[in-house]
Amino acid sequence: MSKLLVVGSVAIDSIETPHGKAPNVQGGSAVYFSYAASFFNPVRLVGVVGQDFPKAFEDVLAARKIDLRGLERADGKTFRWSGRYEGAMNSAETLSVELNVFGNFEPKIPQAFRDSQFVFLANGGPDTQRHVLEQMRKPRFTLADTMNLWISETRPQLLKLLKLVDGIVLNDGEARMLTGESNLIKAGRAVRQLGPNTVIIKKGEHGSLLVDKDGLFGLPAYPAERVVDPTGAGDSFAGGLMGYLARQGKVTDANLRRAIAYGTVTASFTIEDFSLNRLRQIKLADIQRRFREFRSFVRL
Amino acid sequence: MSKLLVVGSVAIDSIETPHGKAPNVQGGSAVYFSYAASFFNPVRLVGVVGQDFPKAFEDVLAARKIDLRGLERADGKTFRWSGRYEGAMNSAETLSVELNVFGNFEPKIPQAFRDSQFVFLANGGPDTQRHVLEQMRKPRFTLADTMNLWISETRPQLLKLLKLVDGIVLNDGEARMLTGESNLIKAGRAVRQLGPNTVIIKKGEHGSLLVDKDGLFGLPAYPAERVVDPTGAGDSFAGGLMGYLARQGKVTDANLRRAIAYGTVTASFTIEDFSLNRLRQIKLADIQRRFREFRSFVRL
Repeated sequence: MSKLLVVGSVAIDSIETPHGKAPNVQGGSAVYFSYAASFFNPVRLVGVVGQDFPKAFEDVLAARKIDLRGLERADGKTFRWSGRYEGAMNSAETLSVELNVFGNFEPKIPQAFRDSQFVFLANGGPDTQRHVLEQMRKPRFTLADTMNLWISETRPQLLKLLKLVDGIVLNDGEARMLTGESNLIKAGRAVRQLGPNTVIIKKGEHGSLLVDKDGLFGLPAYPAERVVDPTGAGDSFAGGLMGYLARQGKVTDANLRRAIAYGTVTASFTIEDFSLNRLRQIKLADIQRRFREFRSFVRL
Repeated sequence: MSKLLVVGSVAIDSIETPHGKAPNVQGGSAVYFSYAASFFNPVRLVGVVGQDFPKAFEDVLAARKIDLRGLERADGKTFRWSGRYEGAMNSAETLSVELNVFGNFEPKIPQAFRDSQFVFLANGGPDTQRHVLEQMRKPRFTLADTMNLWISETRPQLLKLLKLVDGIVLNDGEARMLTGESNLIKAGRAVRQLGPNTVIIKKGEHGSLLVDKDGLFGLPAYPAERVVDPTGAGDSFAGGLMGYLARQGKVTDANLRRAIAYGTVTASFTIEDFSLNRLRQIKLADIQRRFREFRSFVRL
């Protein structure tokens, strides 16, 4: 076990998919991440909510090994996102976004959290992510998420961040956009040239690719037969990944490979129902069982 | 070693890709298949060419362990295909097709070939494929390729064929089209319900999926950094796959997994240059070296 920190959004989501509607449910990158990671390792969460944030949502997290001393309650309303998925549900159509208190979020890392050894910077402005890193005392492994918005609108700031983190997780389109390389292997190598030693490229239903100092690792997606709501898949992936790494305590190529597989498997549960519903029904033993199935799925 | 037969097209191709042009080069499904398979096991080829077919093209095949006693030379011209790939080269735009002698091809399997244990029916009309099977004496493992045209235009005939073959290889779009299932795992299972015990779904740059009686196997694509011409990738994949299986002599789940990996790796050479150019430069040891790299790429 290690000390694992996540900084990111805590949200109230309203989701529509071909399988139904889920209005005003628990969401946010830091929420999916920390719930997913908490199967493996205790988690420290830094985020902000408004006065309207339901006590019940907080209780769901507090009931896990998730330390909420960094969850600020500010004046105003909680971040709200509303989205819809259609057809094969490959991407969400955003129906509305209200940043509310998350719009002015300047994460203050509690003193008690500053010795965290594993740090996940959920998707956010690169300057804000860098501001978090500046508050930390020599973390062992820092991983940042990003998105197309930051690549196009705040590229200089993102490039600055990339020199400071150990790892970056991004999707295939973002890797191509960031580097101008259409070949994903070349794109992954080019991202490494920008700073991070560990580059994890998510290809959605096509799996993931790891580019690190030891070379390449490729994994197909989990062979999911039932997808109800893809929301939170990426953050659950990161949560399972960082949770497993923190539990192991050491970032080796072999651990990273298994961490990516654990992230894949954890996310495969998330998408089987809305919000945290499916994750709330399972135990680490369920994740481990599916990990073994997945390992046999890819065994060559 | 076993007796391995392929029935398919022998063509003269003219190709344009972003990397250049290759007019009037050696092509055709049976040609790519048999060259790829010949690294692993001797091959028997049944096909047809016209009076214009260059002796040099025949020599390239005869120099390998490819038995050409089933290569018919008919009155008329050889099958010609001209195509262009653009951008990421995910699909070919057909510029022209002249079926010529291949249009009336009614494969006659030489008596000496009828005891073949492993049979690959390259893409072709399902009635023609069935006609081949009817000439064979109890083959051990028959694998058919197909395409969208046969699924939409000759579905009843294709369904009849599917009840007779041991395996089918098709791409993700074709699997969805054949079964009406958008989820690829469900589609694979639905194809098995139509007859073939072994279903191999090719996902192009996203790898492949095996659905067989023992369950599921998923493999990402080979992490290719240089693609010059994708022509023949599918038939080289099938060639490496069937060549390896024939060499092993037994179709087990473990052999099928490795066969799919060998197919993947063999095809990864094909696409590095036009026509058979790259395959003609390599030896089995090169394929085996790349297989080991690929196995380490997916090792979990």
